[in-house]
Amino acid sequence: MNLTLRPVLYSVLVLAVAACTDPTPTPLAAAANEPVRPHFEIKNVPAFDPTSIAAYDGDHADVYAHIDQNLDSHVAQLQRWVRQPSISAENNGVLEMAELLRQDLEDMGFAEAELVSTDGHPGVWGYYDAGAEKTLMLYMMYDVQPVNPDDWQVAPFDGALVDHDLGSVLMARGATNQKGPQRALLNALQSIIDVQGTLPVNIMVAAEGEEELGSPHYPQIIDKYEERLKHADGVLFPFNSQDREGGLTLSLGVKGIIYFELEARGDEHGGPMNNEIHGSYKAVVDAPAWRLNQALASLTTEDGNTIRVPGYYDAVRPPSDEEYSLVNGMLKTWDEDRIKQQLGVARWVDGKTGGEALMEYLYTPTLNIDGMWSGYTGEGVKTILPHVATAKLDSRLPPGIDPDQALASIRTHLDEQGFTDISMVTKSSYPASQTSVETPLVKAAIGVFNRYGATVRVQPRLAGSAPFYQFTERLKLPMVFTGLGLGTGAHGPNEFMLIAPAEGVKAAGLAEIEKGYVDLVYALSR
Amino acid sequence: MNLTLRPVLYSVLVLAVAACTDPTPTPLAAAANEPVRPHFEIKNVPAFDPTSIAAYDGDHADVYAHIDQNLDSHVAQLQRWVRQPSISAENNGVLEMAELLRQDLEDMGFAEAELVSTDGHPGVWGYYDAGAEKTLMLYMMYDVQPVNPDDWQVAPFDGALVDHDLGSVLMARGATNQKGPQRALLNALQSIIDVQGTLPVNIMVAAEGEEELGSPHYPQIIDKYEERLKHADGVLFPFNSQDREGGLTLSLGVKGIIYFELEARGDEHGGPMNNEIHGSYKAVVDAPAWRLNQALASLTTEDGNTIRVPGYYDAVRPPSDEEYSLVNGMLKTWDEDRIKQQLGVARWVDGKTGGEALMEYLYTPTLNIDGMWSGYTGEGVKTILPHVATAKLDSRLPPGIDPDQALASIRTHLDEQGFTDISMVTKSSYPASQTSVETPLVKAAIGVFNRYGATVRVQPRLAGSAPFYQFTERLKLPMVFTGLGLGTGAHGPNEFMLIAPAEGVKAAGLAEIEKGYVDLVYALSR
Repeated sequence: MNLTLRPVLYSVLVLAVAACTDPTPTPLAAAANEPVRPHFEIKNVPAFDPTSIAAYDGDHADVYAHIDQNLDSHVAQLQRWVRQPSISAENNGVLEMAELLRQDLEDMGFAEAELVSTDGHPGVWGYYDAGAEKTLMLYMMYDVQPVNPDDWQVAPFDGALVDHDLGSVLMARGATNQKGPQRALLNALQSIIDVQGTLPVNIMVAAEGEEELGSPHYPQIIDKYEERLKHADGVLFPFNSQDREGGLTLSLGVKGIIYFELEARGDEHGGPMNNEIHGSYKAVVDAPAWRLNQALASLTTEDGNTIRVPGYYDAVRPPSDEEYSLVNGMLKTWDEDRIKQQLGVARWVDGKTGGEALMEYLYTPTLNIDGMWSGYTGEGVKTILPHVATAKLDSRLPPGIDPDQALASIRTHLDEQGFTDISMVTKSSYPASQTSVETPLVKAAIGVFNRYGATVRVQPRLAGSAPFYQFTERLKLPMVFTGLGLGTGAHGPNEFMLIAPAEGVKAAGLAEIEKGYVDLVYALSR
Repeated sequence: MNLTLRPVLYSVLVLAVAACTDPTPTPLAAAANEPVRPHFEIKNVPAFDPTSIAAYDGDHADVYAHIDQNLDSHVAQLQRWVRQPSISAENNGVLEMAELLRQDLEDMGFAEAELVSTDGHPGVWGYYDAGAEKTLMLYMMYDVQPVNPDDWQVAPFDGALVDHDLGSVLMARGATNQKGPQRALLNALQSIIDVQGTLPVNIMVAAEGEEELGSPHYPQIIDKYEERLKHADGVLFPFNSQDREGGLTLSLGVKGIIYFELEARGDEHGGPMNNEIHGSYKAVVDAPAWRLNQALASLTTEDGNTIRVPGYYDAVRPPSDEEYSLVNGMLKTWDEDRIKQQLGVARWVDGKTGGEALMEYLYTPTLNIDGMWSGYTGEGVKTILPHVATAKLDSRLPPGIDPDQALASIRTHLDEQGFTDISMVTKSSYPASQTSVETPLVKAAIGVFNRYGATVRVQPRLAGSAPFYQFTERLKLPMVFTGLGLGTGAHGPNEFMLIAPAEGVKAAGLAEIEKGYVDLVYALSR
């Protein structure tokens, strides 16, 4: 997963809130012209209860036994994958990994297994024709993040098995993000094929090698197979979703995002055009750094928490009753203070707590400064008038907000406020993604997790972002990024995936992960 | 000179304005509560004419001849000085250089020549008792900036003589900033002593080894000799002030400065306290970057050119008639377009030109962002909510504004605007310095320069800053930083001082520089 999603998925999957609070009062009427954030009160609908979905009860003992008997070779398959570097940012091993994946699909009996050229690294397409009624689309990423080997306790592409206090883990770049869970799924499919001769569902694989770059060319891969993909029944992105207690958070969506840079530069209208100049010239020379600050300041209220761009909040879709039900379910178990402690945050915005804070987290469009810089940033005193000042901003978009419209409204606001001199360059832009808890795919997943005793928590969405709109909005398919299993360290050193849990660790090991995928495929075929 | 002054002194000594314009109209009444910058119209008083001061006519042919006869050994003295590294920031050779200077003074016959301990690098005090009526104080700095030898065409501490298109130059760290001109002055004094047996004036030397650090402990050196220094008749800081055409700008003051950092940090009231967090949490977490940005924006008008801090401009002292006279003199010769071209600036603030721009340059207190930073400043997309945001600001203070009052008014403004969460740390703070053109020291200097055919331009002040208030405000002495001679590259690679000008170069070489200092000392003694 790229960073827009990763820290949320991998470290803090949920925003915790202490307990269900009373419906909060509507805020006092704001001052004239003061913008107001959307405010959705908790609604008194029954809380969604994941345990209300029956645990999956299919019997696939012969496949489970095959997995248990072949577990060593299954581990070796994960090792084979992580031993092939595929660092998209450095074009290191990327084509080799694409071909490795393609060949694996061919060897498994995929009727189609081909590289898909894009304007960047190639995609991989695969189609397994089981002659089945249902078709599962697999989203896969075969690329990984760069490594700094000095920071690792093992060589990051050795595929070492390491004794960890969680148990035996595969420690390697890509172990959990995302080769481990993906290859575990293929192991599960291979086991079904070995035992039953074929799969209970057809499989469409649409894999990319640029997820860690922000999936810039994934739409080109979808382009080629769009008409076929639309006939799939759902999309699975294999994911190690458990914590050590066996808890599993299932997020049914992500926010969209716009990411853009604002920049002020000296030009023919004023300011230094070529380079920084001596600070004393501020007396007669315009300052890009001030212009950027003034432009930024025009975008929010003084507390930085409410967006002043006219109409920015208008398109936010109110929660559906299903989402209210999920929120009420979330409120039963989450621990707001623990999350604050993990983040190192003493207080949510406006001192909100409980349900109010949770609704802000899930439904509020944000405007965030990711970075800003100008001039001298070192120690001590240096007196210059910088010729350029830059800020990186992102805005997280809950369902309803169109990213192009959001970008346009910010540009219009800046222009209307007189900041036509501030340039705006879009770096990333896509809408939210949402899947209903009522879809067969989600119900099947929850049923499987219930079978394995995972404590399932379902939330309507992450506040983070990923371009899953390609599946839910473009192809109109339900989509889940989930699975049994535990991993950590994505993007950092000592990334690992748990293979064989130690005593007392309730997260699944590789065998159980694969059995879970077996069950999920069968559950979907029903 | 440290950087607060240096780029002005060394590269663009003057703000050029095209020609004297008609008095500009008073601006229309500003909107209610809109702050207005001080506005001083050009006043119709006679322009100061440096050529109205008679060229110095003293005859010191025997001393000149001595200089000419010993020029090689005089060059060797400069080389000896620059070959002793004295990098204050790295404590490299500092004590050795202090002792070298002290010993030189002793060898010249200074009755007192001693190191002066401070809380930092030592000062050097010297007193030459000529039994004369007049006493000249010499301000000297014996430290230099660090070097990056890879960037140099010669080893920076070799003291190489290099053929340059300007002529033969001494290329070394400290060649012009400030060992070269200072040792040239001592060569001149030595020559007088050699020929006449003593000097026509008494000399007090108060040298420091921390000028490049911002002179943090220079006041401690003054402390020790304050009562004696007060009885001097003026202060000279030897300086290579000429351009290649022989032009020489004499600035009679500098602006004061306050330099401070504003910072926003997550704390118990909100925001991430320990480190950056995932940007999606902006939905419920306060953002230090927005708070800093809003606090900064509260300080100026939207164009960044007028300070909104109440009362900030109130104490600016209007120009005196003498200053109006100097300004009118400046307007006769300066070339506004050339300065704009050198700076890479197409337009002054508000489209001002000519006299209006010059008055802004000389009399407007500035507020400038030297640098600011927060969060991710690299390439591409990274979505974080930074826990800290920082800005470095400086404000240049024309005469009348007290730096402590300026700092306090900014703090008060921030507090009153609700920005009590923004910390403010002062890094430097001192008032303006001003010397009158009517003082014997300045008249003597102009008379000497007129003798050598330098085109003298006198300006009431630089818009840059240096802590010369120690001389003019504390000791109540006139002070000039000037001299014949040409040098460049201070703080950068290939720093040099012109020793022997090529054909057509009208700046003085070492012999003429020294003769100029001889004349200046005699002129002062009258």
